Amino acid sequence: MDSRRAESFSDGVFAVAITILVFNLLPIGAQRLSTRVLADHWPNYFAYVVSFLTIGIMWMNHHTLLAQVTKVDRPLLVRNLFLLMGIVAIPFPTALVAEHLTRDVAGGSLATVAYGLVMIAISVGYASVWLYITSHQQKLGARRQISAPRMATIRFTGGLAGYVAGTLIAAFVSSVLALALFGLLAVYYMFEHLPDPAEADSEPPAGPGRAVG
Amino acid sequence: MDSRRAESFSDGVFAVAITILVFNLLPIGAQRLSTRVLADHWPNYFAYVVSFLTIGIMWMNHHTLLAQVTKVDRPLLVRNLFLLMGIVAIPFPTALVAEHLTRDVAGGSLATVAYGLVMIAISVGYASVWLYITSHQQKLGARRQISAPRMATIRFTGGLAGYVAGTLIAAFVSSVLALALFGLLAVYYMFEHLPDPAEADSEPPAGPGRAVG
Amino acid sequence: MDSRRAESFSDGVFAVAITILVFNLLPIGAQRLSTRVLADHWPNYFAYVVSFLTIGIMWMNHHTLLAQVTKVDRPLLVRNLFLLMGIVAIPFPTALVAEHLTRDVAGGSLATVAYGLVMIAISVGYASVWLYITSHQQKLGARRQISAPRMATIRFTGGLAGYVAGTLIAAFVSSVLALALFGLLAVYYMFEHLPDPAEADSEPPAGPGRAVG
Amino acid sequence: MDSRRAESFSDGVFAVAITILVFNLLPIGAQRLSTRVLADHWPNYFAYVVSFLTIGIMWMNHHTLLAQVTKVDRPLLVRNLFLLMGIVAIPFPTALVAEHLTRDVAGGSLATVAYGLVMIAISVGYASVWLYITSHQQKLGARRQISAPRMATIRFTGGLAGYVAGTLIAAFVSSVLALALFGLLAVYYMFEHLPDPAEADSEPPAGPGRAVG
Repeated sequence: MDSRRAESFSDGVFAVAITILVFNLLPIGAQRLSTRVLADHWPNYFAYVVSFLTIGIMWMNHHTLLAQVTKVDRPLLVRNLFLLMGIVAIPFPTALVAEHLTRDVAGGSLATVAYGLVMIAISVGYASVWLYITSHQQKLGARRQISAPRMATIRFTGGLAGYVAGTLIAAFVSSVLALALFGLLAVYYMFEHLPDPAEADSEPPAGPGRAVG
Repeated sequence: MDSRRAESFSDGVFAVAITILVFNLLPIGAQRLSTRVLADHWPNYFAYVVSFLTIGIMWMNHHTLLAQVTKVDRPLLVRNLFLLMGIVAIPFPTALVAEHLTRDVAGGSLATVAYGLVMIAISVGYASVWLYITSHQQKLGARRQISAPRMATIRFTGGLAGYVAGTLIAAFVSSVLALALFGLLAVYYMFEHLPDPAEADSEPPAGPGRAVG
Repeated sequence: MDSRRAESFSDGVFAVAITILVFNLLPIGAQRLSTRVLADHWPNYFAYVVSFLTIGIMWMNHHTLLAQVTKVDRPLLVRNLFLLMGIVAIPFPTALVAEHLTRDVAGGSLATVAYGLVMIAISVGYASVWLYITSHQQKLGARRQISAPRMATIRFTGGLAGYVAGTLIAAFVSSVLALALFGLLAVYYMFEHLPDPAEADSEPPAGPGRAVG
Repeated sequence: MDSRRAESFSDGVFAVAITILVFNLLPIGAQRLSTRVLADHWPNYFAYVVSFLTIGIMWMNHHTLLAQVTKVDRPLLVRNLFLLMGIVAIPFPTALVAEHLTRDVAGGSLATVAYGLVMIAISVGYASVWLYITSHQQKLGARRQISAPRMATIRFTGGLAGYVAGTLIAAFVSSVLALALFGLLAVYYMFEHLPDPAEADSEPPAGPGRAVG
C-alpha cells in the first residue's frame, strides 16, 4: 500500500486527538467567574499546554518515521495502529493529572503513574514501528539506506528508560518531580530526532542508488 | 468522480470515529482516585482497546476495498455512506457494553446484542460495496481484473454468519462468550483480507491489460 | 488558490460533523438497560439516521459543486464558509427534534421549525456558492462550460421553496408532516444533482476547448 | 519536509476546531423548549457565529501564509504548533463569553479579557511564523521573492495592537465595546491579507526565477 493514505489517516487521528484536548478547558466556563476561579484551574491550562506540545512533537516524529519509506504493509499498519492507540489515549491521563494533581497527594501520584504508563506504551509503539522499518527497508521502498540504525535504537531505548524512571519516581518519590522529567523528555524529543530524508536530500547530491519519492 | 476524494472523506470519518473512543475513558477522571477505582473500570479500558482495534482493522480493509477501483459513482458513494453510518455508530454499543457488562446479566446481554446488530449492519454494508464493485469493474476503472470474486464473497458471508451467531449467543446463552467470538472475528479480519492490488503490483510483471493506477 | 486545499478543509469539516452525530446516541448508555428503554429512544436513532444521510448527501453535492472549478478565490471561500457554518450546525436542531418530538406538541413543533430554518440557511448558502461559480467560470478555471445554469438555478430555488413550505407546515400544521417533507427533499437531492464534470468526461470525446482537470 | 503534510495536519486541526464549536449549542436541546428559552440563548448563537467566522478566516490566512513556501523545517513546525495551540483554544474563551456576557458585569468583563488574551497569543503566533518565513525564504523554497515584507509586518503589528487595545477596553471600560472591536478586527482580516502567490501567478507572466509549486 502507498504510504500516503496511511499518513493521511494518521494525520487525521493526530489532528483530532490534539484538538479535543480543549475539552479539558471547557467545563470551567460553566462556573461563576472570578479571577480566583480562573487562577485555581492552573493545572488544567498546564495540562493543556503540556499535552498539546507532546502530541504535536509526536506528530512531527511520526512524520519523520513514515517519511523513511514509500510503502507500508499489513504488519507495519498493525504496529502503527497500536502506536496510535497510545496517542489517542493521552487525553485520559492528562485529565487525571489535571483533576488530581492539586487535590490530594495519593491521587496525584496515581494520576502521574497512569500518565507515565501511557508514555511507556507509546515509546514501545514507536520502537516497534522503527525496528520493523529498519529491518524491512527493501520491502518498504526506503528512500535511502537508513544510516546508523543502531544509534537511533539506542536513543529510543534511552527515552523509554526515562519514562520508566519517571513512572517509578511518581509512584515512590514525588509526582511533581516526575512531571518535570516528562516535560524534559518532551523537550528532548523536540530537538533530538531521526534525520529527515527530505531534509538530507536538499544538501548533498543524491546519488544514483536513491529511490524516487 | 475520482476515488481520491471519497477515500479522503472516509479516512476523515474513520479517524474521528476512532479518536472519540477516548470519551469512554474521560469520565473516570472526575471521580476520587484510588487503584480500586481505576481497576473497577476495566470494562472501559477493554472496550476502548477492542473498539479501537476493530475500527482500525475496518479502516485497513476499507482501504483495500476502495483500492480496487480508480473511480467512484453515485450508487457506490451511497453504499459507502451506509457502511460509514455503521462504523460511526460503533462507540454507541461500545459504551453500552462498557457500562452494563459487569452491572447486571440482563443489561449486559442486551448491550452485547446491540453490539452484534451494529456489526451485522456493517457486514451487510461491506458486502453491498463489494458486490457493487465486482459487478461494475469496467465502469469504476478497476486497477486489474478482480480475481476469484466468488471466493471473497464466501468469506464476506462467513463473517456475516459469525456475527449473526454471536448475536444469538448473546441473546440466549452468554454475553461473555459472544464478546469472545466478536474478538476472534476481529483477529480473523486482521489476517484474512482481500488481495491489495498495490501489493500484488510489486511482485510479478503487471501485464499489458492493467489500468494505470 | 488551488481548489484542492479548500476541498480538503471542507471534507474535514463534513467528516467531523457527520461523526459527532453519534453523541446523540451516547447518553443512552448511562441509563439502566431494558428493551423498553432502548425502544423509547427511537427518535434518537431516527434523528441519527436522517442527519447522517443528510450530511452525507450534502457532502456528495458539495463535491460536485467544487468539482466544476479548478481554482477558488476569497469571495468563493467566504461563501463556502457560510455554507459550512450551516452544515456544522445540523447536530443542534437534530438534537432538538430528537429530544422534543415525542415529549410535547409545542416543543416538537418549535424544534422542527428550528430544523427547517437551518435547512433554509444551508439552501441559501448552496445557492450563493452556485451563483458565484456560474458567474465567474473563467476566473475560477471551470473544467468545462457549465451547461444550462438556469435549469440548475430553478432546481436550487425549488429545494429552497420546499424547505420554506416545510418550516411553515411545522409551525402551523404538523411537525411529523414537516419532517416527512424534509426526508423527501433529502431523497430528492440524493438522485437529482448537478452533472459531475468528471463523469461527463468519461463519455463523449472531450473536445479541444476543455481545461485539463 | 514537504509543506504538503504540514498543511494537511493544520487543515485537520482547523476543521476539528471549527466543527466542535457546535458543542456550544447542544446543551440547549436538553431544556424544556419555548421561544423564550431559545431566544434567551442568543449569546450562544452569537458566539457560535463569531468564533466560526474567526477560525474560518484564520484558516484562509494560514493557507496564504504556508502557500508562500514549498518546504517546512523543524523551527517552522514548532512555531506553527504554538499558533495552532492558540487556535484550538478559541472554543474556551468563546464558551466563557457565551455563558457570562449577559449574566453579570464582572464575569462578562473577565470572559472578554480572556478572549482578548487568546487573540493576542494567536497574533504573536502568526507574527512569529511570518517573521521566520520572510527571513528564511531561500531555505524554505519560497515560491517567489516575498515583496514588501516590511509592509506586512506593519499590518501584523497593527492587528496585535488592536487586540491589546480591545483587551484593555474589556478590562476597564466595556466588554460589549471590546467585542465589537474584536468583530471589526475579524472583518478587517477577511479583506486585508497577504498576497496569495497562486493568485499572483495567474496574472503576469511568471518569469524564469520562479520555483515550481
